[in-house]
Amino acid sequence: MAKNESVSMSVIRRLPRYYRFLYDEMQNGAVRISSRELAERMGLTASQIRQDLNCFGEFGQQGYGYSVQTLYKKIGEILGMDELTPAVLVGAGNLGRAVAQHMPFETRGFRIVGVFDDAPQLIGQSLAGNTVRSTDELEALCAERHPVAAVLCIPKESAPALVARLVDAGVKAFWNFSHFDILRVYPQAVVENVHLGDSLMALSYQIAASENE
Amino acid sequence: MAKNESVSMSVIRRLPRYYRFLYDEMQNGAVRISSRELAERMGLTASQIRQDLNCFGEFGQQGYGYSVQTLYKKIGEILGMDELTPAVLVGAGNLGRAVAQHMPFETRGFRIVGVFDDAPQLIGQSLAGNTVRSTDELEALCAERHPVAAVLCIPKESAPALVARLVDAGVKAFWNFSHFDILRVYPQAVVENVHLGDSLMALSYQIAASENE
Repeated sequence: MAKNESVSMSVIRRLPRYYRFLYDEMQNGAVRISSRELAERMGLTASQIRQDLNCFGEFGQQGYGYSVQTLYKKIGEILGMDELTPAVLVGAGNLGRAVAQHMPFETRGFRIVGVFDDAPQLIGQSLAGNTVRSTDELEALCAERHPVAAVLCIPKESAPALVARLVDAGVKAFWNFSHFDILRVYPQAVVENVHLGDSLMALSYQIAASENE
Repeated sequence: MAKNESVSMSVIRRLPRYYRFLYDEMQNGAVRISSRELAERMGLTASQIRQDLNCFGEFGQQGYGYSVQTLYKKIGEILGMDELTPAVLVGAGNLGRAVAQHMPFETRGFRIVGVFDDAPQLIGQSLAGNTVRSTDELEALCAERHPVAAVLCIPKESAPALVARLVDAGVKAFWNFSHFDILRVYPQAVVENVHLGDSLMALSYQIAASENE
């Protein structure tokens, strides 16, 4: 599907919300929805919703609104949900295990094709339908399965060397839970950083600010 | 510390990054840093950094730059790190356990004063220095420890009833891993949503978009 190059990150960040919301509506039996209803339920304005969706083509019909199923499917295509991206999970400690067990990767556009950790007690265990392997096997697996993305659930200290190996092995996208700044070293990489601690500190700020109101 | 009411969320979201960065610099023995160095290392412009920090008062000295330790401490105060906010963790399943074990709450401004779950096999277990209790004890603990915040590691379905009880018991801030839209029901609440799946879908979009370039 053709992508509009000029779509801003703030629009892109709203798409998953639309996608989740439309899924719930479908489950509730909704067949169509107007941009006004969609706006009201999602806490946005109708004009914002029309603008967001217009970035990707014409979806709605004047006076009819949107077909919930069609819009869900279209947004899924825009998000790349229709083709699963092969990915490796690097780091099978507490965080890696929780991510693997909690996240339905296949309904979010990814298929985990390999799980790696260096801790001897983890190697050989089963996780997310994969057997945890030593990172010694990283290059061999990449040569065989061609993962495009890596989920990094490793400490910052281990990240530079592992990211270098992953990039050399053809991985170009990272879901990065480590605090290593990948883009600073690999500006061509596609990176989504997840800094949970930053989110917690932003909450702390808002609590402190609300107490001072 | 007085807060500037007009500080935008985008500035607030950068503060934790400054805070982490300055901590690393301190560990590396840095004593002072110019806004130009800070900018270069963080991928921002020097003028953006000066603007960000000016929102909170005068920190730097012309020609000297910033004292790393002073700036770290000041940003910590702005973020409310100097006073730990009491919080409960609700949900001690995979996600709750990973969050509890992975997140250094006390260096991010919070102290966990109670952990709750309804699964009989979890109640009585130890987690994050707390014993997992039945949610039946929620109100009693809130009356005793006055938590201001709740970390919600529960499914969307369980969230409405539990959030209602937490709000009634005086909790006003939520670190929300569930997909329940708290602000829609409690517009006065302070909420940080963590939608890990949305981040993963945004990564999928960027991969698809980069392949179509």
